[in-house]
Amino acid sequence: MATSTPLRDLVLRTRSVRRFRENERVSLETLHALVDLARLAPSAGNKQPFKYSLSVSRRVNALIFPHLRWAAYLQDWNGPAEGERPAAYIVICRDITISNALNSDQGFSVQNIVLGATEHGLGSCVIASFVRDEIRKVMQIHEALDPIWVIALGVPAETVVVEPLGPAGDIRYWRDGAGVHHVPKRSLEEILLTQFREDE
Amino acid sequence: MATSTPLRDLVLRTRSVRRFRENERVSLETLHALVDLARLAPSAGNKQPFKYSLSVSRRVNALIFPHLRWAAYLQDWNGPAEGERPAAYIVICRDITISNALNSDQGFSVQNIVLGATEHGLGSCVIASFVRDEIRKVMQIHEALDPIWVIALGVPAETVVVEPLGPAGDIRYWRDGAGVHHVPKRSLEEILLTQFREDE
Repeated sequence: MATSTPLRDLVLRTRSVRRFRENERVSLETLHALVDLARLAPSAGNKQPFKYSLSVSRRVNALIFPHLRWAAYLQDWNGPAEGERPAAYIVICRDITISNALNSDQGFSVQNIVLGATEHGLGSCVIASFVRDEIRKVMQIHEALDPIWVIALGVPAETVVVEPLGPAGDIRYWRDGAGVHHVPKRSLEEILLTQFREDE
Repeated sequence: MATSTPLRDLVLRTRSVRRFRENERVSLETLHALVDLARLAPSAGNKQPFKYSLSVSRRVNALIFPHLRWAAYLQDWNGPAEGERPAAYIVICRDITISNALNSDQGFSVQNIVLGATEHGLGSCVIASFVRDEIRKVMQIHEALDPIWVIALGVPAETVVVEPLGPAGDIRYWRDGAGVHHVPKRSLEEILLTQFREDE
């Protein structure tokens, strides 16, 4: 298998976490450090159209939570119970006065944030399915800003493991009887296409 | 300013590089390690629709190069000269039989690759503007696979620095007389919107 490096260890530990120790608070300063990592990501045409709204407030978190959709594959689970909900949120918006393009480089910034969260001992879950207008209202986000992701954050209260796909090739994550969350990942062999070597 | 962490150092050093030491070769094994980081990124619905075609071949690299567009803001520069071209390429494709959605999570995998490249002492440039059909032909990519990014890689032959935006707020990168590439980044203050504190 692949050689371990500090980055690979961090990448491997950066899993979507959906249950948190809600009472262990996250500081705004930690969120600033994470947004700073997003700020330093490469950006198409260096336009840097992304802006960030933050909450570590219990009151505001309680207003955000009902508008998020959690874990489509866990059909008998409607999201984390009270006490296991996120302690912090980062809402990522595109400033449409800077760029209205539906490009993918926002993912660069998001990945920096979730890797940084892991480095800070936090779990995170990137949520793209949420009620935009309600999140906009709660976070007092201007109409020229388009909320595209909500990142939920907190100290993890669940274990998440990566494992190979089973023989049926099912990619759906699942939770076992002990509450461990399993994430099947395709093998390197499966995702590699053509390879042109040095002497070809 | 933000506290330094191992990840922040890596993020700061991960800049788009457009001139390389073309004769310093990159091994396929290094590209495998980078694709392995991409493999382990979070994926929407865990579908993992991305597949990867690789080249470290001088012959194939020479066929790829003419179909890439470089550095829109450097108008008197048509891309790296012979001897300064990439030593390796990773072409990222979406397998449309797995997912046809234009979602942004491909950026998670790309960011892992470019951070990994830096960790391996390589520079990288993520290119979204290229002649898709020609790249598909050169790399022998099946029609059910849609090439979305080309990542150019090699040992850097240029210095790239991040700096604050100037007073006019221009975000265009530029190259100075000594050939140093300057990337103006918006400040943390500029990209932060509303913030809800613990006691709010």
